[in-house]
Amino acid sequence: MNIYDISEKTGVSTATVSRVLNRSANVSEKTRAKVLAAIEEYGYTPNVFARGLGLNTMKTVGIMCADSSDPYLARAVYYIEQELRKNNYDALLSCTGYKLENKAKSMTMMLSKRVDAVILVGSNYVEATDDKNDYIKKAAATVPVMVVNGILRHPNIYCTVCDDKSAIYEVTDSFIRCGRKNLLYLYNSTSFSAKAKLDGFRSAVKDSGSLIENEYAHYINSNNLTVHKVQEIVAELAEKGVKFDGVITSDDILAVGVVKYAKSAGIKIPDELYVAGYNNFDISECCDPELTTVNNKLENLCNQCVSTLMKVFADDRSVPKETVFSAEIIERDTTEFKIKKGS
Amino acid sequence: MNIYDISEKTGVSTATVSRVLNRSANVSEKTRAKVLAAIEEYGYTPNVFARGLGLNTMKTVGIMCADSSDPYLARAVYYIEQELRKNNYDALLSCTGYKLENKAKSMTMMLSKRVDAVILVGSNYVEATDDKNDYIKKAAATVPVMVVNGILRHPNIYCTVCDDKSAIYEVTDSFIRCGRKNLLYLYNSTSFSAKAKLDGFRSAVKDSGSLIENEYAHYINSNNLTVHKVQEIVAELAEKGVKFDGVITSDDILAVGVVKYAKSAGIKIPDELYVAGYNNFDISECCDPELTTVNNKLENLCNQCVSTLMKVFADDRSVPKETVFSAEIIERDTTEFKIKKGS
Repeated sequence: MNIYDISEKTGVSTATVSRVLNRSANVSEKTRAKVLAAIEEYGYTPNVFARGLGLNTMKTVGIMCADSSDPYLARAVYYIEQELRKNNYDALLSCTGYKLENKAKSMTMMLSKRVDAVILVGSNYVEATDDKNDYIKKAAATVPVMVVNGILRHPNIYCTVCDDKSAIYEVTDSFIRCGRKNLLYLYNSTSFSAKAKLDGFRSAVKDSGSLIENEYAHYINSNNLTVHKVQEIVAELAEKGVKFDGVITSDDILAVGVVKYAKSAGIKIPDELYVAGYNNFDISECCDPELTTVNNKLENLCNQCVSTLMKVFADDRSVPKETVFSAEIIERDTTEFKIKKGS
Repeated sequence: MNIYDISEKTGVSTATVSRVLNRSANVSEKTRAKVLAAIEEYGYTPNVFARGLGLNTMKTVGIMCADSSDPYLARAVYYIEQELRKNNYDALLSCTGYKLENKAKSMTMMLSKRVDAVILVGSNYVEATDDKNDYIKKAAATVPVMVVNGILRHPNIYCTVCDDKSAIYEVTDSFIRCGRKNLLYLYNSTSFSAKAKLDGFRSAVKDSGSLIENEYAHYINSNNLTVHKVQEIVAELAEKGVKFDGVITSDDILAVGVVKYAKSAGIKIPDELYVAGYNNFDISECCDPELTTVNNKLENLCNQCVSTLMKVFADDRSVPKETVFSAEIIERDTTEFKIKKGS
């Protein structure tokens, strides 16, 4: 929506629309009211002036994240805002929730604010059903879209991800090499990254041949999840006869719940049970014993995302469409990889 | 900076400035360049149009917080963004860090973006030395300023706080009533709220008369603080001869560090040592034994802050200048208030 559209919608000349916008005296009250009504109705914001002016940018980037109070997403928003600021860009934040409808609405809002680009934080923005990603692809026709920790292949969409699949593959493989025969995999998301992790677990199990006796992947709904809720769920699984001497998880909170369960059930960690988390959050160091977990290099991802965006803005020809970082396993007290591997 | 200022600075008539802004053909290249240069130089953004138009608002509120990856601040930003969105306002986020200079810069940036109000999240924005708050008071001459968890008395500044002093007073008093005679208070901030907490500790100690043998308040610098760093510091204090059978802290991370220290030193919690945290973060439930802590009603504070702001926007005469909420003590396994109180 620009000055020409407003002119067309109202039947008022662009010159007169300009005069209204500039509070010129030479406009009748009636015409003025008509133009302002159209501006309200069509959501025209004067920001478009900036583009029309040769001031080609509002120097504002939209950050969309499902829930900025989630510790992973909160850290990501922080890193991205800092990097944008260093490059003299402002951050317009929108916490969209996890519903597709609200994500799409939020994107429309961002575009109406004439942001210079949109950054989608968190792999939950990339849906497996491809038509659910249409609103992102459509947005990419207008501004560059950056995806942090998800891959969506489309023109003007740039992705930065952590290789979560390989990380979980490596963790699972280490469990198996250390003689763990009954593996339980717990996950609480069906996002792009969650799928990659599950895939890593399944691949490692498959590649292990007959070294494994039982393996079970269990999905836990992450709404209002607490460590005690996880503890209960694991106890129920055990009661139902699910056997495990190793539990691999897609998120630290799940792993802490397993540690709590083990304590209440008198199971010794790591002797009788190995546990691994994911994300290397604060809680992984706070629980007892402290968690073996995976550092997914979030700061690297966020910095790279902004640096790629700046290259896009600068029309740099060497912009990478996808950048992949490796995760790093942080071993603490809920596993004994090093000792067992060495022996 | 508005169209009249640009006219004055350039010596070009407002009509001509308007023509430049509207890309009218009837302007010489030289004049056009001059006006655009002035617009760049004086940081004039076309947003001012909105105000001049009778579209009196950009419907954008600036959120300033020191560090949105801090779990307390991250949750606050999330709650505030959600509430603003419900009221059809956008959130422009700025993570300012803790340095006064950068906070003031960030405020200037916010005002130049013509936000409708600024929300300062976290009590670190209110400095004890009053002239350090001048940039906030100055901003309040332009737009309403909301302070979350800090009190700054000045026209057009509205504050929502949690009564942290009473909460720590009550925790300390409970320790004393349960027979704890050697109290250590650990804190990691000198903010408005941190001062209130320390005050609460000191008042309770004072009011206890001769029931206490030793009390010691120790400040820990919070840069790059980890639970293990806290654990080390507490061990050093014990080595130096500081006696404690009760440790009260201003933040859960400090309390988790104390729990780690106790475990490594073979001290039994709660029999030999009481520990209390503050904030009721995830980590308070993840550590073992689980922490007694304080829920400071952050969601209430944030919702109230936005609802007050909406009243300010609506010119409601019944706007409260200060709103105070009570905190709630959450007792878990690092204390035994209930049993001891009842006996």
